Amino acid sequence: MFDSSRLPHVMTAQDYAAFEENLHERLLDAQFELAERKSASVLVLVNGSDGAGKGEVVDRLYEWLDDHYMETLTYGPPTDEERARPRAWRYWRDMPAKGRIGVVLGSWHHHLLLGRAQRRLDRAAFALALAEINRSEEMLRKEGVFLLKIWLSMDDRLARRRLARLRESNGALRRPAVIEWSEINRRKERERLNAAALEMIEITSTGDAPWSIVPGEDHHYRDAAIGDLLLQLLRRANTGAAESPGRPEIVSASPAAPAVNLATGLDLSRKADADDYARDLSDLQRRLTEATTSKAFRVRGLVLAFEGNDAAGKGGAIRRVRAALDPRRFRVHGVAAPTDEERARPYLWRFWRNIPRRGDITIFDRSWYGRVLVERVEGFAAEDDWRRAYQEINDFERQLVDAHYCVVKLWLAISPDEQLRRFEARETSAIKRHKITPEDWRNRDKWPLYEAAMTEMIDRTSTRFAPWTLIEANDKKFARLKVLRTILERLEA
Amino acid sequence: MFDSSRLPHVMTAQDYAAFEENLHERLLDAQFELAERKSASVLVLVNGSDGAGKGEVVDRLYEWLDDHYMETLTYGPPTDEERARPRAWRYWRDMPAKGRIGVVLGSWHHHLLLGRAQRRLDRAAFALALAEINRSEEMLRKEGVFLLKIWLSMDDRLARRRLARLRESNGALRRPAVIEWSEINRRKERERLNAAALEMIEITSTGDAPWSIVPGEDHHYRDAAIGDLLLQLLRRANTGAAESPGRPEIVSASPAAPAVNLATGLDLSRKADADDYARDLSDLQRRLTEATTSKAFRVRGLVLAFEGNDAAGKGGAIRRVRAALDPRRFRVHGVAAPTDEERARPYLWRFWRNIPRRGDITIFDRSWYGRVLVERVEGFAAEDDWRRAYQEINDFERQLVDAHYCVVKLWLAISPDEQLRRFEARETSAIKRHKITPEDWRNRDKWPLYEAAMTEMIDRTSTRFAPWTLIEANDKKFARLKVLRTILERLEA
Repeated sequence: MFDSSRLPHVMTAQDYAAFEENLHERLLDAQFELAERKSASVLVLVNGSDGAGKGEVVDRLYEWLDDHYMETLTYGPPTDEERARPRAWRYWRDMPAKGRIGVVLGSWHHHLLLGRAQRRLDRAAFALALAEINRSEEMLRKEGVFLLKIWLSMDDRLARRRLARLRESNGALRRPAVIEWSEINRRKERERLNAAALEMIEITSTGDAPWSIVPGEDHHYRDAAIGDLLLQLLRRANTGAAESPGRPEIVSASPAAPAVNLATGLDLSRKADADDYARDLSDLQRRLTEATTSKAFRVRGLVLAFEGNDAAGKGGAIRRVRAALDPRRFRVHGVAAPTDEERARPYLWRFWRNIPRRGDITIFDRSWYGRVLVERVEGFAAEDDWRRAYQEINDFERQLVDAHYCVVKLWLAISPDEQLRRFEARETSAIKRHKITPEDWRNRDKWPLYEAAMTEMIDRTSTRFAPWTLIEANDKKFARLKVLRTILERLEA
Repeated sequence: MFDSSRLPHVMTAQDYAAFEENLHERLLDAQFELAERKSASVLVLVNGSDGAGKGEVVDRLYEWLDDHYMETLTYGPPTDEERARPRAWRYWRDMPAKGRIGVVLGSWHHHLLLGRAQRRLDRAAFALALAEINRSEEMLRKEGVFLLKIWLSMDDRLARRRLARLRESNGALRRPAVIEWSEINRRKERERLNAAALEMIEITSTGDAPWSIVPGEDHHYRDAAIGDLLLQLLRRANTGAAESPGRPEIVSASPAAPAVNLATGLDLSRKADADDYARDLSDLQRRLTEATTSKAFRVRGLVLAFEGNDAAGKGGAIRRVRAALDPRRFRVHGVAAPTDEERARPYLWRFWRNIPRRGDITIFDRSWYGRVLVERVEGFAAEDDWRRAYQEINDFERQLVDAHYCVVKLWLAISPDEQLRRFEARETSAIKRHKITPEDWRNRDKWPLYEAAMTEMIDRTSTRFAPWTLIEANDKKFARLKVLRTILERLEA
């Protein structure tokens, strides 16, 4: 999950200054509206690796916001008073009143992760605790408490270096660094903690209270991203709690939001070696035939989901996959407008009905991800509906993987220029003319919105059991080979 | 949980005939409205012990409803087709379209319980599966699928006798009995199954899709109760899915609903032996003093919740408890109208802040149950809010019990006549005059509504870890002794 956080995220000081000036004013406006309405409160949970900059983030929030209407809530090892009561008591004691913002260091998630890393909790207790967290947070949301759950991510070695530096220069600091994981030093424990954090983030990222992973390497980027997230949450709290409980108006992505995403991080210039292409292709196809006709495959199943920019070459790639498959064992399912039958049933029904038997293969040419892509961008789905879809989709895919299916999700990415070239070529080609419509041109105008939706989709649904693979598709041959190679790798894993 | 299902539930044939005639017509109206609106579908899940009458219930539903707009969905051991796909696939395949009612035998809960009883699932897998069920059912609800989850309960020996009889007379039946648990024969497995069912019912009784436990002994009562539940659900589906998604209009309890509840099942004539009262009282008080000053108590904590009819004698009972406690270690917390401070925070905050340290005691004179009693009946809380409160309260109490607190919940019950006598006595007594207000008289007029709310409250929140105890309180002395005895028993357990 949260693949985008592993990309380099940088923002120049100049960009940041312009962004921040604008943001600061809007944050203050939103905060005062919250304080005036008194119909909702906000908790900003700052979690993440030690050394990733949690203390700096809190400082920045105090620079931006009015400190009369906010408070810092820090939970370290429990005090005598706290130890004498149930675990949740101290969080309840400090619950901010409506109209106020609480900045939380050491939230309930943190202490749960510590317990798991130190083996004080077994798998069952951890699973139960995560389910309990989801119920509690849902209750808070319904009682008017909006949560911004931030996970500051940073390469572990870098974080430890930063931390050591902070410790050495402690004299120069106004106060000691905010250290949460200090009990976790042994490598084994850190690894267990990271695994537990990943599981926690997957399970507790709900529609109303998802985790936002913010890369901490570049402090300009980090602060801009967090400021933007907070502004969006404050706006939801201000509108959501007023007229339409549970169904806030759509807050469009801030135009000044940091323009880093997965697609822009790809090297689209990658090319296949034209001389070897035919040989490589037939070699990969032969291996795919073997893999899908093997005895081992009969108790499994393969579900392929193809998504990507318009004209990215999904059809061509699917044809190369299909050619390697036994025609009695696969089906290509193109996702069109839903039928009456489908509209009369829950959203995922139209995909469930096309799940293959074990030993068979379904190729989805566009998939259930339409909910968080086209339906989100075009407004076909209400915001609450596409927001809850991330978790529902993860649950859906987990059920497939638990049943021994292999779920391969491929995003074919091309650059806007390459798309323009292909659109124009289609219009002049007699064969390909039917493949281009006025709608394609309209979608093209919404490129940034689709790009934002795609980034969030991949961040929220690239799970350990069903990861996304991004395919650089400006060169069709490169894309086709990488598609085949990805499927083979996943099948062999 | 579901204490009321253990009471004898009977309905005369005559009462049933009158009730059923009225119900039948209203059910059909509601079904046709559902079919016309096509904005929601309904699943009636018929679960419970074998022999409790599941097949008969399905027959009755077909007598009441129009079979053009309904279908029976039966899931036994998976077929080859089903085995070749993920577990959930067959439920998805059969999902009724909007406007239709599906009657489900062998729902997803059933197969999970079988797996747990036969030890194919460990505790962690079971916990994860329950959490997943909650997420799936929430998704269904948001996609317009309303669930009526019925658990037919019956004494195990009686059920087995009935089943044996059914098997013998099979020739006389139109078709074989609906047998789900047939794989479960050994006593150990049946016990594990019952324990797992209880846990499942606790965890998966959510605000939107609670379990309804229906006693199966008397078929008139059983059918009337199920018909009434279905009518209420159809009305919620018809109104809820239209104007106000997620916030359906309040459906008041059907006036013709079966008039059996916990309070009417109590023997209120029970009396304390007047001669022994003083001795028994001081004996119990001495034991309570010992129990709450012992060394073992220092790492525990005691939370007492007193609820009951107006003038049931809560104050007098609390005084007898208090007299046995160290005044430095307890606090009586009378629940009044919420303060500004409290109103600005989530509902449970006002109770969390009064949770004692370990080793101490808080007596709540009325409690968090106000949410599902007075706030429900008087309309101070929206229906969605009090409906979700049952699960939230169970979670709250589970957190206390997990932290080694003892949670004792006492309902003091008096008869309407006894209440009238006490009200009148209060009005003529100079000392007690302040204890009676016009509001008390108004509440008295709503006796049936409060009784229905109390029954549902006890059914939904009498958990294994924090059960309710009903106190027959027409005789004050009897009530006081039983209160003390209950607290002692719970402390000693």
